[in-house]
Amino acid sequence: MRKVAIVGVGMTKFGEHWERGFRDLVTEAGVKALEDAGMSGAEISAGYVGTMAAGSLIGQEHTGALIADYMGLNPIPITRVEGACASGSLALRQGLMAVASGMHDVVVVGGVEKMTDLDTAEVSEILGGAGDQEWELFLGATFPGLYAMMARRYMHDYKATEEMLASVAVKNHKHGSMNPLAQFQNEITIQDVLDSKMVADPLKILDCSPLTDGAAAVVLAPLDIAKKYTDTPIEIVASAQASDTIALHNRSSIAGVKAAQIAAQAAYKQAGVSPSQIRVAEVHDCFTIAELMAIEDLGFFSKGKGGEASLNGETQIGAKIPVNTSGGLKACGHPVGATGIKQAVEISWQLQGEAGKRQVSGADIGLSHNVGGSGATAVVHIYKRVN
Amino acid sequence: MRKVAIVGVGMTKFGEHWERGFRDLVTEAGVKALEDAGMSGAEISAGYVGTMAAGSLIGQEHTGALIADYMGLNPIPITRVEGACASGSLALRQGLMAVASGMHDVVVVGGVEKMTDLDTAEVSEILGGAGDQEWELFLGATFPGLYAMMARRYMHDYKATEEMLASVAVKNHKHGSMNPLAQFQNEITIQDVLDSKMVADPLKILDCSPLTDGAAAVVLAPLDIAKKYTDTPIEIVASAQASDTIALHNRSSIAGVKAAQIAAQAAYKQAGVSPSQIRVAEVHDCFTIAELMAIEDLGFFSKGKGGEASLNGETQIGAKIPVNTSGGLKACGHPVGATGIKQAVEISWQLQGEAGKRQVSGADIGLSHNVGGSGATAVVHIYKRVN
Repeated sequence: MRKVAIVGVGMTKFGEHWERGFRDLVTEAGVKALEDAGMSGAEISAGYVGTMAAGSLIGQEHTGALIADYMGLNPIPITRVEGACASGSLALRQGLMAVASGMHDVVVVGGVEKMTDLDTAEVSEILGGAGDQEWELFLGATFPGLYAMMARRYMHDYKATEEMLASVAVKNHKHGSMNPLAQFQNEITIQDVLDSKMVADPLKILDCSPLTDGAAAVVLAPLDIAKKYTDTPIEIVASAQASDTIALHNRSSIAGVKAAQIAAQAAYKQAGVSPSQIRVAEVHDCFTIAELMAIEDLGFFSKGKGGEASLNGETQIGAKIPVNTSGGLKACGHPVGATGIKQAVEISWQLQGEAGKRQVSGADIGLSHNVGGSGATAVVHIYKRVN
Repeated sequence: MRKVAIVGVGMTKFGEHWERGFRDLVTEAGVKALEDAGMSGAEISAGYVGTMAAGSLIGQEHTGALIADYMGLNPIPITRVEGACASGSLALRQGLMAVASGMHDVVVVGGVEKMTDLDTAEVSEILGGAGDQEWELFLGATFPGLYAMMARRYMHDYKATEEMLASVAVKNHKHGSMNPLAQFQNEITIQDVLDSKMVADPLKILDCSPLTDGAAAVVLAPLDIAKKYTDTPIEIVASAQASDTIALHNRSSIAGVKAAQIAAQAAYKQAGVSPSQIRVAEVHDCFTIAELMAIEDLGFFSKGKGGEASLNGETQIGAKIPVNTSGGLKACGHPVGATGIKQAVEISWQLQGEAGKRQVSGADIGLSHNVGGSGATAVVHIYKRVN
């Protein structure tokens, strides 16, 4: 396999883009990534896009071709990839294989979702399609409901508290306040989270990521020509994906995400690094409980110790392992198909020293962790700065 | 790139499966393909599935993980790929790259759609998402309407007749009558087509492919170990994909599919073969006009001569170039995400001499042609029997 590097990145502001459509957002992100790589569309030979539910959200399937058209890239092939909230990372993985295989040289990979054109109840039902439609959604389980069950079990097994959950949101809002592209740039307190409206006990509204419009994109090239496009290529040194049961009720434990544990171990092996070598990580905090499980599943903290670590500030910028410097899904926002690519964009900026006020000093190896549904898909990528 | 071969194939009967769900159909096809390869799930290291609109049709996104679960393949990664009616071929192409790159060894690739759970008007609107939602579907254009415009232009430019269109349906029903897995196994006449109910002038109901439930699957392996699984591996010697504008109104011509012409030329170049060397082809006859354009876009007949050739029987089994021996989308049925994989299954059977009553004698090189939407995506694969 050829080695592959990110040579350009770009993203829109995440938020409620009432005045702009799906195709506008993804085109903006794609063009920014091409500009960052200093190349024209003529150098691109293929593309991938992660989007979860454009068919249901905006009535548009076949978004790969739509994007090739609106980015002016015809006749190159662009392919849409979907794995619920992990769609972006799955697209990144396909782009990586397209370059690694030699089938294509320079590939653009985007992620996008336009979520605010429908009311919240409709969107909630559509997002429920990320779980088991027949055994969960049909019976009334929403995603806050599924993650609430995971949170209750986690709290029971490990004596975790609502304050520990809340500390994730507080930290991610703090990080988001330093990210001009984040949906929420306001700081909050633990008391704010505890006092906020209950959604699905024990998860309050400030434990939940928002509905978001947004897009992100990266340009991939073979590592051996990457310096043609950028002084600071970011090599993707591991890409691992694993599956678990689509429904929660079939799992041996719901106080962790087994697919993420398997993907993480495979990724560390591919990259030849250990968890302690990771200097910055973007993880899938669709709900606060998800980040506590993630930092354990990734081996940053031992099982059951994530809550205390989070409450103690060990995942903040400047501490042991800075997690979700972008603000994460919670504060940067969660346009589902875009999230996996935004993670790659944020890690690239961190490893390039381009992360502004939220820069992690000495960041040379980074990781992204993207989960689909309640953990039926998990994808872990590891990135290294090329010196 | 490593060379890649198909080492096992399987498919469900295509038709209206009122008593069975999406997950049942895809599991049946996948298990049949594994059985055909004589392997257990333990040898599979990844999977891909093409499905167009499960989110809208059955409320289920995240179908890759669902299938990993129901096929008992956890924790291997299965990824869903979508490009409207070309979704199956796009999944095949990703599976090919996964093996070619060395990322994975043995990969299962499926295609599936469950289309008969909603009424026809609802399904028609969902399928409209394969075109341009904002500029076509929103304004009332359905797919029969879009292809009717293509048919009118083609008839105007090339003096083609409704009888020429009808001859495609007659031939495909004749082929379908020899395929026990086809949705329609009855023969029809040109007069039957001309007398059938008008859908979108000049396309009558017998010019249109039906709504279908069904699934198909293939198992891919590196060519150098393919004989471990089968005596008759089918090498995929070319895989090419191209894009065109999502909406019809932006194209220089609508009397042909430019993306298919580009993909075909790229595929012939990759395979080092000419159109005259193709012994059997499965092409995308979502409407009869689409097959006439396809056999020209693929270079089997010169531009504008496809209608006469079809009327003269030159695309029947035993004639110049047998097209759609399975019955095509018209008679075998068109579960949209499954179609591209069904084409690969049919070509494999033909090249292996396993096509029963519809066997093409001397078939050693085959081709599949799969189109998304009204031609915004086109994918061409070429296959060779390994002696």
